[in-house]
Parts: sequence; structure tokens; C-alpha cells
Amino acid sequence: MKEDNMKNTIDTYGSELVEDYSRVMKNFGLELFNPKLFPNPNRIMRRGIEYGGRDLKKIANAIKKKKPFYVLSGIMPTADKIHLGTKMVVENIAYFQKQGAITYILVADLEAAAARGVPLKEGRKRAMQFHIPAYIALGLDPKKTFFYFQSENKTVVHLAYEFAKKITLNEFKGIYGSADPGRIMSAVTQVADILFPQIHKQRMPGIIPTGTDQDPHIRLTRDIVSRTKSKYKFQTVSSCYHKYMPSLDGSLKMSKSKPNSCISLPEEPKLVCKKLKSALTGGKDTIEEQKKQGGDPEKCMIFELYKQHLIEDDNELESIYKRCKAGTLLCGEDKKYACQKMTEFMEKFQKDLKNARKNINKLNFINFND
Amino acid sequence: MKEDNMKNTIDTYGSELVEDYSRVMKNFGLELFNPKLFPNPNRIMRRGIEYGGRDLKKIANAIKKKKPFYVLSGIMPTADKIHLGTKMVVENIAYFQKQGAITYILVADLEAAAARGVPLKEGRKRAMQFHIPAYIALGLDPKKTFFYFQSENKTVVHLAYEFAKKITLNEFKGIYGSADPGRIMSAVTQVADILFPQIHKQRMPGIIPTGTDQDPHIRLTRDIVSRTKSKYKFQTVSSCYHKYMPSLDGSLKMSKSKPNSCISLPEEPKLVCKKLKSALTGGKDTIEEQKKQGGDPEKCMIFELYKQHLIEDDNELESIYKRCKAGTLLCGEDKKYACQKMTEFMEKFQKDLKNARKNINKLNFINFND
Repeated sequence: MKEDNMKNTIDTYGSELVEDYSRVMKNFGLELFNPKLFPNPNRIMRRGIEYGGRDLKKIANAIKKKKPFYVLSGIMPTADKIHLGTKMVVENIAYFQKQGAITYILVADLEAAAARGVPLKEGRKRAMQFHIPAYIALGLDPKKTFFYFQSENKTVVHLAYEFAKKITLNEFKGIYGSADPGRIMSAVTQVADILFPQIHKQRMPGIIPTGTDQDPHIRLTRDIVSRTKSKYKFQTVSSCYHKYMPSLDGSLKMSKSKPNSCISLPEEPKLVCKKLKSALTGGKDTIEEQKKQGGDPEKCMIFELYKQHLIEDDNELESIYKRCKAGTLLCGEDKKYACQKMTEFMEKFQKDLKNARKNINKLNFINFND
Repeated sequence: MKEDNMKNTIDTYGSELVEDYSRVMKNFGLELFNPKLFPNPNRIMRRGIEYGGRDLKKIANAIKKKKPFYVLSGIMPTADKIHLGTKMVVENIAYFQKQGAITYILVADLEAAAARGVPLKEGRKRAMQFHIPAYIALGLDPKKTFFYFQSENKTVVHLAYEFAKKITLNEFKGIYGSADPGRIMSAVTQVADILFPQIHKQRMPGIIPTGTDQDPHIRLTRDIVSRTKSKYKFQTVSSCYHKYMPSLDGSLKMSKSKPNSCISLPEEPKLVCKKLKSALTGGKDTIEEQKKQGGDPEKCMIFELYKQHLIEDDNELESIYKRCKAGTLLCGEDKKYACQKMTEFMEKFQKDLKNARKNINKLNFINFND
């Protein structure tokens, strides 16, 4: 009983691992993310790292027919670093933005205050000084993006109150696995954020690129869309999900709780290279053995980093794969190359971050005082 | 088990009857409302209609020592009438206001929208056109009152989010008897409203005059005050509770579900007099019998109306009581007098309401756009 129940809920707020993506897809009724649906799929999409989603054809159609649609994501300004999963989300936002999506980035200052005790002012300051510049450094076009602070957006708060009335406690537990007052308020507010662009602009399809652990918010949103149909006529929201970046020690998800196996942005290149040196690879016990039998890139965290983040060119990635398999590329050399690529990336990120900060006062923040 | 559980919760949102006030006081740990604590207690207080409360000495002390304290109440702008219970609340607010309380009246437009589907604009309009003028007609001094709309008050919304994190679902159920997402959001927002004056002005005692069915909000507020002590240092909030006005047919609480036994404000005097004619009294079966044995004012709904609302002068009330007991005042004559008093009251209320509407644009609304 309990196991079955577990299978059908994901803990949105904990750090439970999602190991078997095909099981997740089956249990939650996700579609396979088919990169062929979309024009010029990005690195994450074409390599199967973006693995699943909901109602993807709706978005593909809007792109194809040049009809309005939106992409939205939220910044939780609790830390002054972001992890590699967030990097993937931003790259996907940037992708849909290039395909014409009206783009919304909200700062979840209310939730950061409630959930982590970050004062509103502090949350906003962090978002302006770090998170938003980091998103821009990772490819977001600020000129084509609407920004807002959750705490300033009365419409979102009003909708959250209204949506709370549309769901029972048991339905909430069914979706989230558990319910407590803080979680409930966060969840209905996120639903209101997700639907806000359809109030701000017009009713239209929208896509939320995120991690699997956020799927309960998408399901709740879809339920609420259908329950408020006669009043609001919102369009159903689509979503897409990326696989986790595994921890450098080979466990399933990078986590700050294991700092030596976790890479955040920004981070000192020297420190990162040190972490890469002790990363789990698919190498053999001895160099001789490896030269003879070849390595296992499938089991290698360095290769995973190349695939997910460091190597853009598919041919180069394939060449590394083959050389590893053939035993001509050894782990030492490979880690050196990863260090070089990572250093380049971190230095470019720092430079772009600095540039993005310069124009931070020119952002298109929605004015709610009209 | 279930009965015990029932005894310790009151349904804030339903219309359960609170019959045995001594049981309520014992189960909820209320103090007796002692009118001697307060200078010049009003009609409701000195006649024991105000029967219980929490931390009343704190308020009595503030009055005595002329230290700052506040009184607060909320308007739920769902209907265009108010009931006699609300009249008592307003009279108590006016009483504490005269004793020096800094006075806050909020319009719960967010809750009216969420709970009853009243659009925000509509809720505000109703509050401005009817509820606030009605409060002024019943004795509120608008010049000494801070008003705000819940939906405009960002501080309240922010506090509500924060407070939601301070309570578990089981604690909520323990206080309210049940929990659903909408109720939870309403409750934490009310707690934020109740504590808002201590942010707006200063930390100080405050009193919330209300009906017993609202005690769960007071208990939740007191719990949250103690749980946020290190951060906010709010002062504990006091409360006082009035008995219900019984239905004219003798059942325990006037309710709109029995329109012929319920009086609302405003209402046509002729219609009210018709209702009074069929009200339950403490009269005997025949006039002869009553003249001989006297009536039972304790069982008489007309006498209850005199006591709670229509007769200000204690001597006059006593005289009616004695004449009824002695069989010299008969029910027919008594009902005529009640009709006359009610007509005077309703006509004065309508006139005062009209006057109050004239100055409605001069109210002291808190400005949140600074």
C-alpha cells in the first residue's frame, strides 16, 4: 500500500532521487520528450537529457504556426549560487524564448521569506545582484523578458486565495504526498504564478521547463485550470523535465550536502578541477588494463559533465566517447581536458555575469501600481 | 472520543450553536468577562451579554494607565446587510475606541473573493457603500479609525505566508476541527490582520471583540505570537465574546436561513414589526392566566431584544421585567412597544447611514504604495 502510494507522489521539497525515468514517466503519465518535435533542439534536448513532459505538441504547434505562447520560470533567491540543474532550466528557457515564447521570470521573494526566512528586501537584492544576472549570463535575453517580484504581484496573490478554495486537503495530499499549511500556500501561489501570463497578456499555451520534482505543481495547475474553466478559460499548461546531473561520486543527484562531489555556479575553477580529479570515472583498475579493454564512458561522471554541460559539439562528444571506449583516451588526460573546459566555462560565466550586472537597472519589471 | 474532540473545537465557518456558555468557557479556557474591569461598561457588557474573553486585564490595565492599545475588526463584504451580532461587535469597538484604543477596520476583500466569489472591486464597493457607513452609523468614529483593504496590505500577505510555516496541519486541525486549503489561507491571513497594527504602529496590547465562533483565530494568533517571539516580539492579543442573539422563534441563534425569525440591518420597520408579532414570548396560554401568574421574560425573545439592543436605560429594562413578571404588562402591548422601539432604531439607523455615506471619501485609509 505504502509503496504504491510512494510511487505516485514526488516530494517537491525534499531531495528524493528520481532514478528510473521510465518508471516516473509511466506513473505520472508523462510523454517522452521527442526532440524532433522542436526546431533546432538544444544540447539538452537532442541528447535525451530532457526526457519527458506534458502536452508538448501544444507548444510545438504554437512554434510551428507562430502563435503566441509563453515560457515561465521562478527564481528562489535563497542562496548566492545556482546548481547545474538550474543552468539546464535557463538554457531551455532561452531555447523557447528564441522560438518566440513570451518570457516571464518571477522572483519568489514571498516564498523565500516564508520558507527560508529570507527577508523580502534581502531576497530581492540577491535576485538583482546574482540570480537574474546569472540567468542572463546563461542565455536569457533580458530585453525580451518580463520580470516581477511575487510579493508585488497582487493578481498572483488574489488568484492564490481563489485557487486554494478549489482543492481539498485530500486532493492536495494525493498530488504532493503530504500537506502542511506552508506548503499549501506555496503551492497555490506557484499555480497562480504559472497562470499569471495568461492574465497579463492573453489566454495562450505556456511551457514550464523544470526538474521532475516540480511536476506536482504542474499537475495541480492543470487541475485548477479545469476547475476554473467556466470563469477563467485558462489554457492548459505544458511542461518539460530534465534528468538530474549525477553527483561526481556517482550517486544519483548532485547535492550541496556532498560539497566535494557538487559543482555550483559560480565556483573557483581551481577548486572545481580538484573535485574533478576525484570524480568517479568508467576507467579500469590499471592503465594497462584500460588501454587493452577501453573505458566505460556510460559510467563516467566526467563524460556525463561533457554530455550535459561542457561540450556543445556532438561530433567532439562522439569522438571522446569512441576514444575512451578504445582505450586511447585515459582518465588522467580526460580529467585535464574537463578541467580546461570547466575553467573556460567558469571564466566566461564570471565575465558574462559581470556584464549582465551592468544593465540590471534596465530590466522590464512589470509595474503593478497602475 | 469523537464527542470529546468536538467539545474542543468550534466550527468557525459553520453555524453550529454555542448553547452552554459555561461549558464553552471551561473547554476553551476563557475568562469570565467582568464589566467591573472597565470604566463605564456599555449595555452589552454590563448586562452579561459580553460573557467571556482572553487576557482582559491586559486591556483594562492599558486603559487605566493610558498606555497605547488597539481594537481591530474585519468587514467581510459579502452581503448588503449586517446582523445583530455584528451590531454588538461594532458597539464594543466604539466602546474601546472611546477608552483610547487605536482603531483598525479592515475590509477582508481577499477572503470575500476567495470564499464567496465576490470580485475584489465589488467587495470594496460594497464596503464603501454599506458596511463602513453602517459601522459609523452604529457608533464608530471614522476620524479616529485606520481603514485598509486586505488585498492592498502587502505586509499582511507577507506575514500570512510566514505564519503558515509556523503551524503544522495537525495543530491547525486541533484548533479548527478540520483543515482545507482555503480555510488555512483565510486563517493565517486573519492572524496577520490581527497582528498588523503592531507592525503599523508599535508593539502593544490589542483586543478583538467578536463572536465565540471566531475564537479559533484568536487561539491561532496567540500560538503564532509565541512561536515568532524571538523575531517579532508581538504582544499577546486579547479578545472578548458576546452571546448570540437568539432567533425570534426561540432557537439559539438568529440565522438568515429562517428569515421570519431573523432581523438584519437595515430592514423595513413594518416587516420587522410583523416578525415581532409572531415572536416567541414567555406569555401564558390565556390572558387571564397571565394576569394571574405573570409572564416569563427569561423565555421571551422580545425581552431579549430589549436587553441586547432596544433599551439602553437599565431602569426601564428592570421596570419592564417587573411588570411582565407581575402580569401587568401583557404580550400584545409589549410587542407594540418593541415595534415602536425597533421602528425608531431602524429609522435612526437609516438616517445615520445616509449621513455617514456623505463623508465616505474622507476616511483614513492606510496608504501602502509608499
